[in-house]
Amino acid sequence: MQNDEYYEYNIIDSLEVLIMEKINGGVTAAKGFYASSAEANIKYKDRTDMALVFSKRPCSYAGTFTQNVFKAAPVLWDMNILKTKEMVHAIVLNSGIANACTGTEGEQINEHMASEIAKNLGIQTKQVLTASTGVIGMQLDRDKLTKGAKLLKENLGDSLEKGLDAAKAIMTTDTVKKEAAFCFEIDGKKVTIGGMSKGSGMIHPNMATMLSVTTTDAKIDASLLQEMVSEAVSDSFNMISVDRDTSTNDTYVVLANGESEVTIEKDSKGYELFKEALNSVCKSLAKQMAKDGEGASKLFEISVINCESKKKAKTLARSVTTSNLVKTAIYGNDANYGRILCALGYAGEDFDPSIADLYFNDNGEKFFVYQNGAPCLFDEAKALEILKKDEIYLVFDMHEGDYSACGWGCDLTHEYISINADYRS
Amino acid sequence: MQNDEYYEYNIIDSLEVLIMEKINGGVTAAKGFYASSAEANIKYKDRTDMALVFSKRPCSYAGTFTQNVFKAAPVLWDMNILKTKEMVHAIVLNSGIANACTGTEGEQINEHMASEIAKNLGIQTKQVLTASTGVIGMQLDRDKLTKGAKLLKENLGDSLEKGLDAAKAIMTTDTVKKEAAFCFEIDGKKVTIGGMSKGSGMIHPNMATMLSVTTTDAKIDASLLQEMVSEAVSDSFNMISVDRDTSTNDTYVVLANGESEVTIEKDSKGYELFKEALNSVCKSLAKQMAKDGEGASKLFEISVINCESKKKAKTLARSVTTSNLVKTAIYGNDANYGRILCALGYAGEDFDPSIADLYFNDNGEKFFVYQNGAPCLFDEAKALEILKKDEIYLVFDMHEGDYSACGWGCDLTHEYISINADYRS
Repeated sequence: MQNDEYYEYNIIDSLEVLIMEKINGGVTAAKGFYASSAEANIKYKDRTDMALVFSKRPCSYAGTFTQNVFKAAPVLWDMNILKTKEMVHAIVLNSGIANACTGTEGEQINEHMASEIAKNLGIQTKQVLTASTGVIGMQLDRDKLTKGAKLLKENLGDSLEKGLDAAKAIMTTDTVKKEAAFCFEIDGKKVTIGGMSKGSGMIHPNMATMLSVTTTDAKIDASLLQEMVSEAVSDSFNMISVDRDTSTNDTYVVLANGESEVTIEKDSKGYELFKEALNSVCKSLAKQMAKDGEGASKLFEISVINCESKKKAKTLARSVTTSNLVKTAIYGNDANYGRILCALGYAGEDFDPSIADLYFNDNGEKFFVYQNGAPCLFDEAKALEILKKDEIYLVFDMHEGDYSACGWGCDLTHEYISINADYRS
Repeated sequence: MQNDEYYEYNIIDSLEVLIMEKINGGVTAAKGFYASSAEANIKYKDRTDMALVFSKRPCSYAGTFTQNVFKAAPVLWDMNILKTKEMVHAIVLNSGIANACTGTEGEQINEHMASEIAKNLGIQTKQVLTASTGVIGMQLDRDKLTKGAKLLKENLGDSLEKGLDAAKAIMTTDTVKKEAAFCFEIDGKKVTIGGMSKGSGMIHPNMATMLSVTTTDAKIDASLLQEMVSEAVSDSFNMISVDRDTSTNDTYVVLANGESEVTIEKDSKGYELFKEALNSVCKSLAKQMAKDGEGASKLFEISVINCESKKKAKTLARSVTTSNLVKTAIYGNDANYGRILCALGYAGEDFDPSIADLYFNDNGEKFFVYQNGAPCLFDEAKALEILKKDEIYLVFDMHEGDYSACGWGCDLTHEYISINADYRS
């Protein structure tokens, strides 16, 4: 259960064994999707900072967005389009400047970004979604966006490399690009779903993540897609935290263009498979973001098991992933499990600490540090060995019910401070 | 309004001007209180690590405690005594080991600590409160506590220096001792109230703070005292945050022995003055803790003003003081005000961002960075000058109502990471 491989399992359908497979690629893995990147010099020098994802066929569109009161101009734009329930063709993204807290001028500039893309692609402005990430409170330059839109059109292609280009162009303090893709077959027809994300700092999604785009060639109604997206997000992006700061720009968008000729409906054969594939894309991207948290040197996972409700299990898991003291202890390879219990204890949920266990899951072996409400005498050398790994798995067994939840976080390091004490300049 | 001096104001009573004064000292400032410290070698070497506060006269007792599910043994002990509404004589405190997550054995050891003090002082075990701070999940040594209790008895005295000794003995990662005392006169009789605190890491009080003891020679009924204490705590200790981690041991205890011969009752002349003095002690100690946050190099205050409710103003202020990204920007002297707006925006409260202002209060001068919902062009050199100070004052003016609240935090530094990546060892 300790890596992405566990998503590659079989689902037993009533009649046959259906297989879902993890494949290479990102937003261009699914049929009929094109992508590109461009150097628009928005803020960075000598790197790409604009990206485009485009489908010739119109797409059903679902999305989740930040709940921050200060919503960035592109977030407001995408939310308005979502309300109209119209099909869309493209999403344009930029890094460097977030176009958040920029007033009505910021909204006008955002519309300019969409309309320049529309002009170049010969589509309607309202068929172009937008997303921005970077410094808050700074205006984007119209001329740079105009130039960038032209380059994005010129560079479009449907190879996996083009998807990778787009994934790289949206990075800010990220150190690696984030992509994930899965496919499965229904009646001899292949359905693919793939996506990209960026996110490293200001990561504590609430109904969405930083910027993430998923494409699929399945044919699926927008409202069913929205239902599946909301569920997938709550168990993936919403369960990671880098620094508890919920961004003004969090955007997760899913586009479905139907090129596979497979229709997904509530009772269709592919429904459960598509749901599982979507969840797998989201979880994979979420874990990649947690692991690449600003300054992070490792990923940690906390499973809260045998809890009386799912909601409670989530709240407890999230309290551990967001504790600065847990995060620094993990950075220091310190088996200071008292800080983990402390974070569980202040989560705002009631439980009986005298029957609970806490252990590390070390490749399937349980290494107990707290059992039946009392500290364990444990082998410090062995604990150090477990903590020195770059992925750490913790389990809190509550012995009170049947629900569980999983949260992902990263350590808090000197490097995080260095990055964030000097980000804007 | 930028330092403790603003607590030293005059209160106009119906008949006369009553004056409250800030004075030197801590737990021994009030009449009839004795204190001491001892080297018990609980965990640290070559420093004191036990403290005692004692009154010969029995004291009314009020207190607030952590809401963490994992409550330390001394917290459970003090809460039980509070329920009995009996008078108490003393509180014994230790640093180094928190006696939290230590099961029933931990509770027995805590009772041993109280009973050894009781034996030495010739009082009942149930008249001795306890408080511990330090590593979680480790047992205290009975013999060391027995030895410490004897030394504490031998070292008792009522000078200000003895109070200072006690304040030093309870420090963990604190770099300075924290004391505050105020006095006022009623009908020619002087009433004094003074206290000490420790707290540097795992500071995000919820109904209480790390360890804090206040003593007063006023005569005051325990239930009235409890009412005043709860109110004072909510505007002081509960409005500071160092790292959002609510400790298992948070304890705030107030002891009133009546030696001043002044009785404080709801309609008495001294009621408002006593309340103000209690609030002032709490606010002063709270700010001292925020400023001495682990690794902190500066204190920052955020005032949320013209808000539609006090509760909402508090939630918003607290969201800013707990943002890692705000804390690192302040460490880096970076006027990255977008992070402050972002933290206000994700606090979970709704408001109209288009009418709000954000400014630094620079010795009474307003330095605007965001006004009427749009970014201001501001002088970066001047911003840097303001940010380089060791106390920073921010104001968020919501223009929507008549309530306000104030929160205090500190910056997040490389030193915080160093301290916490290697605390237990």
